[in-house]
Amino acid sequence: MHVNIGIYVTLILLLVCIVQTSSKKYEPNWESIDSRPLPGWFDDSKVGILIHWGVFSVPSILSEWFWYQWKTKTPVLVDFMKENYRPDFTYPDFAPQLTAEFFNAEEWANLLKLSGAKYVVLVAKHHEGYTMWPSNYSWNWNSMDVGPKRDIVGEVADAIRKNTDMHFGLYHSLFEWFNPIFEQDRANGFKTQDFVSMKTMPELYEIVNKYKPEIIWSDGSHAAKDDYWNATNFLAWLYNDSPVKDYVVTNDRWGVNDNCIHGGFVNCGDRFNPKVLHKRKWENVMTLDRYSAGYRRNAKLADYFSVHELLTEVAQTVSCGGNILINVGITKEGTITPVFQNILLKLGGWLEVNGEAIYGSRPWLYQSDNVTTDVWYTSNMVEQDVFVYAILLSWPRNNNTVSLGSTIMTTSTTVVSMLGYKGNFSWRPNAYGGIDVIIPPIPFNLMPSVDAWVLKISGLKNVYKRN
Amino acid sequence: MHVNIGIYVTLILLLVCIVQTSSKKYEPNWESIDSRPLPGWFDDSKVGILIHWGVFSVPSILSEWFWYQWKTKTPVLVDFMKENYRPDFTYPDFAPQLTAEFFNAEEWANLLKLSGAKYVVLVAKHHEGYTMWPSNYSWNWNSMDVGPKRDIVGEVADAIRKNTDMHFGLYHSLFEWFNPIFEQDRANGFKTQDFVSMKTMPELYEIVNKYKPEIIWSDGSHAAKDDYWNATNFLAWLYNDSPVKDYVVTNDRWGVNDNCIHGGFVNCGDRFNPKVLHKRKWENVMTLDRYSAGYRRNAKLADYFSVHELLTEVAQTVSCGGNILINVGITKEGTITPVFQNILLKLGGWLEVNGEAIYGSRPWLYQSDNVTTDVWYTSNMVEQDVFVYAILLSWPRNNNTVSLGSTIMTTSTTVVSMLGYKGNFSWRPNAYGGIDVIIPPIPFNLMPSVDAWVLKISGLKNVYKRN
Amino acid sequence: MHVNIGIYVTLILLLVCIVQTSSKKYEPNWESIDSRPLPGWFDDSKVGILIHWGVFSVPSILSEWFWYQWKTKTPVLVDFMKENYRPDFTYPDFAPQLTAEFFNAEEWANLLKLSGAKYVVLVAKHHEGYTMWPSNYSWNWNSMDVGPKRDIVGEVADAIRKNTDMHFGLYHSLFEWFNPIFEQDRANGFKTQDFVSMKTMPELYEIVNKYKPEIIWSDGSHAAKDDYWNATNFLAWLYNDSPVKDYVVTNDRWGVNDNCIHGGFVNCGDRFNPKVLHKRKWENVMTLDRYSAGYRRNAKLADYFSVHELLTEVAQTVSCGGNILINVGITKEGTITPVFQNILLKLGGWLEVNGEAIYGSRPWLYQSDNVTTDVWYTSNMVEQDVFVYAILLSWPRNNNTVSLGSTIMTTSTTVVSMLGYKGNFSWRPNAYGGIDVIIPPIPFNLMPSVDAWVLKISGLKNVYKRN
Amino acid sequence: MHVNIGIYVTLILLLVCIVQTSSKKYEPNWESIDSRPLPGWFDDSKVGILIHWGVFSVPSILSEWFWYQWKTKTPVLVDFMKENYRPDFTYPDFAPQLTAEFFNAEEWANLLKLSGAKYVVLVAKHHEGYTMWPSNYSWNWNSMDVGPKRDIVGEVADAIRKNTDMHFGLYHSLFEWFNPIFEQDRANGFKTQDFVSMKTMPELYEIVNKYKPEIIWSDGSHAAKDDYWNATNFLAWLYNDSPVKDYVVTNDRWGVNDNCIHGGFVNCGDRFNPKVLHKRKWENVMTLDRYSAGYRRNAKLADYFSVHELLTEVAQTVSCGGNILINVGITKEGTITPVFQNILLKLGGWLEVNGEAIYGSRPWLYQSDNVTTDVWYTSNMVEQDVFVYAILLSWPRNNNTVSLGSTIMTTSTTVVSMLGYKGNFSWRPNAYGGIDVIIPPIPFNLMPSVDAWVLKISGLKNVYKRN
Repeated sequence: MHVNIGIYVTLILLLVCIVQTSSKKYEPNWESIDSRPLPGWFDDSKVGILIHWGVFSVPSILSEWFWYQWKTKTPVLVDFMKENYRPDFTYPDFAPQLTAEFFNAEEWANLLKLSGAKYVVLVAKHHEGYTMWPSNYSWNWNSMDVGPKRDIVGEVADAIRKNTDMHFGLYHSLFEWFNPIFEQDRANGFKTQDFVSMKTMPELYEIVNKYKPEIIWSDGSHAAKDDYWNATNFLAWLYNDSPVKDYVVTNDRWGVNDNCIHGGFVNCGDRFNPKVLHKRKWENVMTLDRYSAGYRRNAKLADYFSVHELLTEVAQTVSCGGNILINVGITKEGTITPVFQNILLKLGGWLEVNGEAIYGSRPWLYQSDNVTTDVWYTSNMVEQDVFVYAILLSWPRNNNTVSLGSTIMTTSTTVVSMLGYKGNFSWRPNAYGGIDVIIPPIPFNLMPSVDAWVLKISGLKNVYKRN
Repeated sequence: MHVNIGIYVTLILLLVCIVQTSSKKYEPNWESIDSRPLPGWFDDSKVGILIHWGVFSVPSILSEWFWYQWKTKTPVLVDFMKENYRPDFTYPDFAPQLTAEFFNAEEWANLLKLSGAKYVVLVAKHHEGYTMWPSNYSWNWNSMDVGPKRDIVGEVADAIRKNTDMHFGLYHSLFEWFNPIFEQDRANGFKTQDFVSMKTMPELYEIVNKYKPEIIWSDGSHAAKDDYWNATNFLAWLYNDSPVKDYVVTNDRWGVNDNCIHGGFVNCGDRFNPKVLHKRKWENVMTLDRYSAGYRRNAKLADYFSVHELLTEVAQTVSCGGNILINVGITKEGTITPVFQNILLKLGGWLEVNGEAIYGSRPWLYQSDNVTTDVWYTSNMVEQDVFVYAILLSWPRNNNTVSLGSTIMTTSTTVVSMLGYKGNFSWRPNAYGGIDVIIPPIPFNLMPSVDAWVLKISGLKNVYKRN
Repeated sequence: MHVNIGIYVTLILLLVCIVQTSSKKYEPNWESIDSRPLPGWFDDSKVGILIHWGVFSVPSILSEWFWYQWKTKTPVLVDFMKENYRPDFTYPDFAPQLTAEFFNAEEWANLLKLSGAKYVVLVAKHHEGYTMWPSNYSWNWNSMDVGPKRDIVGEVADAIRKNTDMHFGLYHSLFEWFNPIFEQDRANGFKTQDFVSMKTMPELYEIVNKYKPEIIWSDGSHAAKDDYWNATNFLAWLYNDSPVKDYVVTNDRWGVNDNCIHGGFVNCGDRFNPKVLHKRKWENVMTLDRYSAGYRRNAKLADYFSVHELLTEVAQTVSCGGNILINVGITKEGTITPVFQNILLKLGGWLEVNGEAIYGSRPWLYQSDNVTTDVWYTSNMVEQDVFVYAILLSWPRNNNTVSLGSTIMTTSTTVVSMLGYKGNFSWRPNAYGGIDVIIPPIPFNLMPSVDAWVLKISGLKNVYKRN
Repeated sequence: MHVNIGIYVTLILLLVCIVQTSSKKYEPNWESIDSRPLPGWFDDSKVGILIHWGVFSVPSILSEWFWYQWKTKTPVLVDFMKENYRPDFTYPDFAPQLTAEFFNAEEWANLLKLSGAKYVVLVAKHHEGYTMWPSNYSWNWNSMDVGPKRDIVGEVADAIRKNTDMHFGLYHSLFEWFNPIFEQDRANGFKTQDFVSMKTMPELYEIVNKYKPEIIWSDGSHAAKDDYWNATNFLAWLYNDSPVKDYVVTNDRWGVNDNCIHGGFVNCGDRFNPKVLHKRKWENVMTLDRYSAGYRRNAKLADYFSVHELLTEVAQTVSCGGNILINVGITKEGTITPVFQNILLKLGGWLEVNGEAIYGSRPWLYQSDNVTTDVWYTSNMVEQDVFVYAILLSWPRNNNTVSLGSTIMTTSTTVVSMLGYKGNFSWRPNAYGGIDVIIPPIPFNLMPSVDAWVLKISGLKNVYKRN
């Protein structure tokens, strides 16, 4: 029998963490770095928001990879530039048009809070190299020197901290397209590290010391190995001596071979969603615009995920032990457009009702149901009581019964209800070894959701204890 | 007893129309102009889309009245200009930035078709005076000479006609802010008509001859009386001799005193929604953005009407004999943003199911129910059979019975059903002289809508006959 | 013998003028219009400055005909636009870049005063149609509405009048390239005059009433006949009833066939310089940049006339009874560049010394000398004394004698000197019936000029009397 | 008696140079660096052109120090920015407007050749840090990445070399205003050298290797000492191992205390013109615009030096053993405006006639005459013959005699003539121990110049021998 033991592993790690946290010094090697327990707030948070903003928000078509795609002759971009700009127009020429005239970090914070997310990751620097803070190492190619004339990272950090309880992290690309110092290092077979010592590392230290991010969400590692990037040295400092050492979380993008292997939690690829348990804490980074993380001025409604599609990702991800990081693209004016507001607020509304199935939850013995499709499980524990949540992503076809096939350790005192709806539902054991839950005729105006529903099952045999 | 006889009047007028259409010549006075029957397609259409696009789409804040509001010192605009432009920047300086790089009239047409609307009215010229076609009378202040370098009106007209069955009309402002020729006429107490003879009239003739609009949706009449505007002369030509004389429809904005009185159908004020029958065919012109017809780059989700609010307007309006004209604002790039796409597509989805209660319908003896709030009636007739539609804007509180209090002439063979749902509902007479309709427990996944539902009542006493 | 009698004719006309000025009413026909004596200040002034500034100063290449030349596919301009602007960029899109940030009319006035010119003609509107004043008839295509946001004509008029004694006139183009109203009239074989009644005439009346120009320097007449332009009607008003009727001067560009024939003075073609006497008062309009009246950003030094070339034009023109109108092109910033300042100041320096041979002078019996090339004559009269001036455009080859061959009516008391140099020169009759003037060795540092020298001859037989 | 021995020193140094050049290795200390003989081409050249072009050419007012002056609140610039730009406009925002659309290096080369200059120094990077070549160390802040999209340094280098015999050098600023890496080093009391190792040195090596400049004209040294700048290390490499080691020339701006002391030749301050002999080879760097090296759009004619003023500087400088480096400012379009063309061509015309008094000359025993002001001496030697040149900056007041008071070792065979004029002038010893030269009456049209004249004196006692 396939029995899932992820939850026990998690608990043991948590214990180890508490014992070790105070004194241990990490060495600049992966064995030591990887031995650091992941600060607990991250797994409990489950839902985060990623924010993409940069010079790519000026042309604002195709994707945030605009510069690279244009220079590598993507036809739609070659045409776009020909039709709309003088022949010698360059990518950096766009920067003064990053006007940010409607940027209001307080408004962002208030909106993001309502989405139900528990952390925010802001792109501090994408592969274009333009820093959204006044970096000492990116002179005249940062948001204070050219374009907005503002410290974007600083304003967002302050607003999030003043207005919300969300954790605040920073996305940072190690690598930069077309940066000639990097290209020299590459041409040297990465035997030189000028780019790392002059740009990448100083910048990382700068943002950690200045903005104290709770997450360092590294990217752009694909271009070289982690020893080129000095990754373990940085992480050892981050974990041992930095101002955020006690709570900072990192991801796994520290070198071309590290994805899914090293670092804090793992992102593996973009949009990683394995739909089974994963041995390490992971995060599914996805975008609300299917095709781009950067805002696209010409995106159509159908290019955005629906609320139902988003909740499907949330349910699958959290069931399998992941966090979900939901990307929002910002306009050159600095706004989060209504189409994003809509989906974020609908997510927030759903989490307002169903959050107990998500926040602080742990994977259950089963992830998805083996009889009824579109049902995903999570669990939670309050003192000695275990609660299991079955998230129904589609309404039962027959409208009155849900057959749950996976073993759920019911007892005679097991109770089933629906989050957001008063009263208990009756149930009966079924032929699959599980239970059939009888759905009463719920008045339409009392329906707790139109997109996904959560059955809460309590009074179960207690199979584990949580600290 | 208050008995509504609007529907009879309508039928009589329709008859008169058919008799007279072929031969009558209209005189340039209101008595004659107003005697022209309204072409029938208009009343049958019920739902139209108004499109605001112009130079105001470049600053794109506050409203399409930006120029006027700025010049009259609206603080938010004075500040906006100070913070974002050089001191001597003028409104016409914005025009080259009306770049329209993503404008694709075919895409517009395909989207608008899916909204269920039956006609489209495009702003050909707003009070700013900038013409969205290459007017001979607005040199260097039109969409071909400065900005897009395209014939916007022509492209939209062609795309609507090639891709849809919608009727195509044009919004045209008689008056222009700050136009010195107009201001001279005004200074002369409107004893001179230079502006009318040099600008307004030539332009109106030009767009009628060139684009053959089925609606001339006049605006900007508030600044002077209709005799200044030469309104009846133009209308006499339009009805007698123009290429659209047989089917063109006009509104009532032809002079400061004409609103609600003269012309084809009446708009009265903006957002006119009397919630009772009106003696003349009327149109409720409203905007999806509560605060602006022009696109606002900084509009928030809450600034847009919800689908439910829109359907409420639709139901109220059509019940009371009106058409609804729903405004969409266009970005400077030429796009209809996803927030507009969303509401238009949801409207279209609702009309796909419930259109028979709307298109071609006539007001019923009652407009709204006198027992249950949020219920509005329409009627329709197929051959000799009369159908009455009760549009429920909220789901019955008790979830199983709707009490309809207004007399509805039921018979023993009366049948009640819900549009989009199979099977008939049982009903019984109630104490108010109407009927209680029993709502069965409808499976959630068979619900025809989440915003508004239509009960169709057939087998009624036939109180009138339609041609 | 060819004897010139122009000077007598002039005197007679002058007499007639004085008699008639006060009472005569001019009829709107050429016979009457042409009968008006030219106000005397104009002939006395001799030297004027023409100023070209407009939207063409933004692209500022090739010439002020940029728009026309581009649209008619002049290769250098087609290439220029392709290389430097987006494909859909239009000519009116240039207008907001007419920033005029360094425009200072006082500085212009002070400079022009130092050039020695006695009148200034400013381009109020070129063929592009853009008015350099806030015209009521060119809405959003004038210097107040788009670009400078200033009344250029008004500022220049005021500054010239406050700071100088120069006369102030306005250049105005009757015709406008690409103006669709004009093109309609042309398509109608000029049987309609909409353009004239809506644009040309109102504008002309507007500038006369508003700025009271002492010259109406008409242009753009080549496109149609004078009856189309309503020219004689305008001129009759100008001469009879306008606020400038007593002193205004006009040129001859009032219709395709009027050049050199009708109007006040005649320009005939551009750069007209017949080098013989002309039957009517004429003006040589020339440009300091050989190739353009509009400022060219890429003009080279060799493209500008040298001081010597300019003085040659001045001497030839004035000798033959003409005025010279010297064009200066203005940058988009509003400056008169140093290369223009240099030539204007050098002209002013020369006129400071030699002005008595120019201002108020009259043609002499001979214009150029028939023995020595590059010698041109003027004359002047103070009370009963006649003075003749021989302008030497090149220094005598032999360095000590100038042979003047034309009869000059010397007497025994004839005295010859050089303007700007003390003392008299000896002379002797020569074989050609004239005199040889002995040039003494003039110390280099006492040389009155390096470009052209004037011999003043007095004590002549008095062959005419001046009033 | 004050006897000048500079010329002997020069000759000895020259000899030493030839002996040592081939083998010596320089050490990175001033004693060794300064021991390198100056390559002879430099002293022979006498006249060079300095070219200022950069982002400062976009605002193009006040001076090339615009950025610094604006940021330090120079009122005229604070006002200029307020009146003409949005409040958040930054200096780097100007860079995309450095359009260079008329930049043609071949045209520059052909013009500069005609000026008579023998070398050109181009600003490769000013204190603004923007590199006019695609530097690997100034990403997105160079002429390829933002603005012109061209390698300005490369194009000028190629054009100068292909079209002229002029030497080509590069101006390079060690220091950069506002560069945060530099500011960190400064904050650290220059104990760190991050800026030098990451920016200054890599750039210097890059331009030497890539463009092989014959002059490294260093600037911006005032901000720190030469040990901070690693100056002697760079110079040792430059002199020992660089591709230009055999002929490169450097100036003295390598550290705050080095001016006038160390390096190749000395500039001392800007506009250094001691009017006496200087112990080391020196260069007078001056600007044709009195107030700015960068082009100023609003400069007036009077702001430019006259030809006479320029020749005065040339005469004084060369007489005292200096070279003169004449600055030209370039427009944002890439042109050398006509006012510059004029003065350069006039200089070239003068040198065409009088060059033998300048090129390859050496200081004479006297520099300026002690009797007649405005007379400056140079000398030259052809085989065994010594020639002395007296440059007259003003024409003799009495127009026929020049009294030269300084001992000039005349003999009975001494001959005096004027460069550009045929024939010898008579002379006689005068009371001051010198000679009076009799100036014949030179015909005006044979005058070799109007600004400065050179008396050539040959047949002198030969007081020294030249190799």
